[in-house]
Amino acid sequence: GSDAPATKKPCMEELSYANRATLPNIHPLASKLLKIMEEKKSNLCVSADVTSSEELLQLADSLGPSICMLKTHVDILKDYTAAFSQKLQALAEKHNFLIFEDRKFADIGNTVKHQYEGGLYQISSWSHIVNAHAVPGPGVVKGLSAVGKPLGRGCLLIAQMSSQGSLATGEYTNAVLQMAEEQSDFVIGFICGSKISKRPEFIHMTPGVQMQAGGDALGQQYSTPEEVLCNKGSDVIIVGRGILEAPDRLKAAESYRKSGWEAYTKRLGQCEQ
Amino acid sequence: GSDAPATKKPCMEELSYANRATLPNIHPLASKLLKIMEEKKSNLCVSADVTSSEELLQLADSLGPSICMLKTHVDILKDYTAAFSQKLQALAEKHNFLIFEDRKFADIGNTVKHQYEGGLYQISSWSHIVNAHAVPGPGVVKGLSAVGKPLGRGCLLIAQMSSQGSLATGEYTNAVLQMAEEQSDFVIGFICGSKISKRPEFIHMTPGVQMQAGGDALGQQYSTPEEVLCNKGSDVIIVGRGILEAPDRLKAAESYRKSGWEAYTKRLGQCEQ
Repeated sequence: GSDAPATKKPCMEELSYANRATLPNIHPLASKLLKIMEEKKSNLCVSADVTSSEELLQLADSLGPSICMLKTHVDILKDYTAAFSQKLQALAEKHNFLIFEDRKFADIGNTVKHQYEGGLYQISSWSHIVNAHAVPGPGVVKGLSAVGKPLGRGCLLIAQMSSQGSLATGEYTNAVLQMAEEQSDFVIGFICGSKISKRPEFIHMTPGVQMQAGGDALGQQYSTPEEVLCNKGSDVIIVGRGILEAPDRLKAAESYRKSGWEAYTKRLGQCEQ
Repeated sequence: GSDAPATKKPCMEELSYANRATLPNIHPLASKLLKIMEEKKSNLCVSADVTSSEELLQLADSLGPSICMLKTHVDILKDYTAAFSQKLQALAEKHNFLIFEDRKFADIGNTVKHQYEGGLYQISSWSHIVNAHAVPGPGVVKGLSAVGKPLGRGCLLIAQMSSQGSLATGEYTNAVLQMAEEQSDFVIGFICGSKISKRPEFIHMTPGVQMQAGGDALGQQYSTPEEVLCNKGSDVIIVGRGILEAPDRLKAAESYRKSGWEAYTKRLGQCEQ
């Protein structure tokens, strides 16, 4: 089943981020991400869930050197402007990270096309990566791809969720996997709790990561970097409150970066034995 | 199974909209909607998928008398402002319809809380009804409810979708139904293809309705008003392109309203025999 950790037989298929970046069938954006991860020794994506544009830009500038990706929810910003998105892009260039707007598109193709390209946010114009739920069927990816593929963008499909009682399990997760394989010219990987595809071209990203396991009052459940990267075989840890609520955010981010990188090298080391 | 039309034994449970509006356990917002439907002889929700605020307001004003609800995607408007949402609310008052922002919330509870209340759109401040995917688990409803319940708002859970290859079927749909029953102080019904709950307090709303069956290039699939209301047992038809792309939108809306009302009275009539 899709819920079983893929690390039962890791050594046959384990490749470094650097090696995966040069695979012949890799999506250019996935390749770029893997190169950034190798270069910055970071598999850390920070979830910048703040409500002020200025604070988000400060976060991006200060944590930029520690991260491979910045995850945003621009629809919770009280003061979003087009100028903000330009500044964010400049910071992504400066610090060499990718921007991932966590929009969770989940409508029919014709609607998500407009939501991705238009409106006040014009997400496709500044976000390297977006994500989508597979529940509407393959049309959601087709609609997004019609906008994003010509721009060199990529999409993550949500295969599993970290929240309690999620319906993204079992057959649902298998259907997501199939949808990704059929549209791998735009889908570069998954939001998931553990590695679900053996194709090394796909990136696995896991939210709900904190140094201590636990949860919140609204169903969120946490796993540790070691658990996610070493035992569950995922590639990127997504950390929000573990960093944002720390007394020193930069120190916390560096601590997650180091933990994440150590867990990744440990996983590689287990294979080389 | 959940996909079977519920009209096999309709007569034991068939109540008029007016009767359902006065059920002891009905949610006040569901009651308000049912009363509007009865009063205006309309089970028509128009999907106002336009990209200009001015055009949307014109639509709301001209089609207002024909509809029980206006469905919006404010995130595709190129020029949304807070003033627009105030004007839309005034039109909803003037013409006695409800506003339904079709946001399809689909994140963990802590995130949807911010997305519903905050950001540029402040959806909870003007939209009577929103909807959510059940895929994150019950936390998504808890998060929305924390914001919307004190305001008297209501939520529709997406139990089925009109798009090809949707994963919202079978066990997924059953889980949605259970989630709704457990949080019926905020969930007032479903987005679905056919009636899935026998509780007459729940409203069933069906998208993808056109006078002719068919589909689009991105997986959308259409059913007719007669099919949806009479055979599938749904309560509200959601019509977008069938009206927006008509040469005379008002005439088209009136035609859908009449078809919808005739199908509903036919269904009631079948029961009284």
